[in-house]
Amino acid sequence: MQGLLLVISGPSGVGKGTICAALLRRLPDLRLSVSATTRSPRPGERNGVEYFFVSEAEFARMVTCGELLEWAEVHGARYGTPRRPVLEALRRGQDVLLEIDVQGGLQVKKSFPDAVLVFVLPPSMEELRRRLAARGKDSPQAMERRLVWALKEIQRVPDYDYVVVNDAVDRAVAEIISIMAAEKCRQQEYRQVKGIFQ
Amino acid sequence: MQGLLLVISGPSGVGKGTICAALLRRLPDLRLSVSATTRSPRPGERNGVEYFFVSEAEFARMVTCGELLEWAEVHGARYGTPRRPVLEALRRGQDVLLEIDVQGGLQVKKSFPDAVLVFVLPPSMEELRRRLAARGKDSPQAMERRLVWALKEIQRVPDYDYVVVNDAVDRAVAEIISIMAAEKCRQQEYRQVKGIFQ
Repeated sequence: MQGLLLVISGPSGVGKGTICAALLRRLPDLRLSVSATTRSPRPGERNGVEYFFVSEAEFARMVTCGELLEWAEVHGARYGTPRRPVLEALRRGQDVLLEIDVQGGLQVKKSFPDAVLVFVLPPSMEELRRRLAARGKDSPQAMERRLVWALKEIQRVPDYDYVVVNDAVDRAVAEIISIMAAEKCRQQEYRQVKGIFQ
Repeated sequence: MQGLLLVISGPSGVGKGTICAALLRRLPDLRLSVSATTRSPRPGERNGVEYFFVSEAEFARMVTCGELLEWAEVHGARYGTPRRPVLEALRRGQDVLLEIDVQGGLQVKKSFPDAVLVFVLPPSMEELRRRLAARGKDSPQAMERRLVWALKEIQRVPDYDYVVVNDAVDRAVAEIISIMAAEKCRQQEYRQVKGIFQ
């Protein structure tokens, strides 16, 4: 059976990273896709682990050669998902996790209608502001820019398959695990019916 | 938030009853819809608990008066779901479980597109035959009739939303609970997005 392609999106500061880390701990067979990016590494980020850090020129080459499943520009940097490792893992039956932005998620859904798109919402915009401030990574201007961007992203929720509110990480993770289990029971997964007549 | 209308269908002998009983134990807030039927009670069945046992005339009256959400004829008896208790429970936010046949499930989906249809499959037709025989309720002729009917029902699986294989009851129940949790995260449940701006 082909693996499940799970896309997790949501505004900066909503806690996607924490949720994805918890998912990977709970589901040891789930494989995280490592994105390529043109932005500079933050302290502690390692090449090939959090991201593949590439030059603008290398990124442009990957786009031209069709090596990216999706790519997008966010806050002035480019991010993209290398296509081959994702396809190979799915074919081997592994589930693959993509933590990408909304533009990227919708591109993936176009080429993979079976991809499962989950949007992570904050409990409120106030809470999102608090989380961004607590993170302390951004200047006040950058934070405002992120919040405006968040509102823009949230408007695309209707194009996503599922919405999970991150009020408590454990609950959000449990909901995503349920979503994955349910998707594996979808009637489109027809082999079971064929199997029964053998 | 309106409750979830969960429809469980599957061939005789597949273990729907066991699964539904386990679901009701695991989810105390889930409400089982009690069907009306024209068939005679089996030993141990109580009126108003397993079924409302009604006469052919009373059943016909309920159909005429629009009191049934769905009804169908199966193995020579009529079965139907009283409409009002289901609607009232959903409106109160309670989840409602319907254990009904495929014809009924598809009728429900027509009037309630949000209903979640789960088809329970046996691991194999051989195993279904074994389970029917072990149940010891049927004559050999009746058992053959049930198996032919089962094949006919299984052909409607593509019209169902989800398929759960009952190889182990606990696993089947866990899958159905995941399906319910996932359905509550569906993006159509839009209130969350509206809520975030308040």
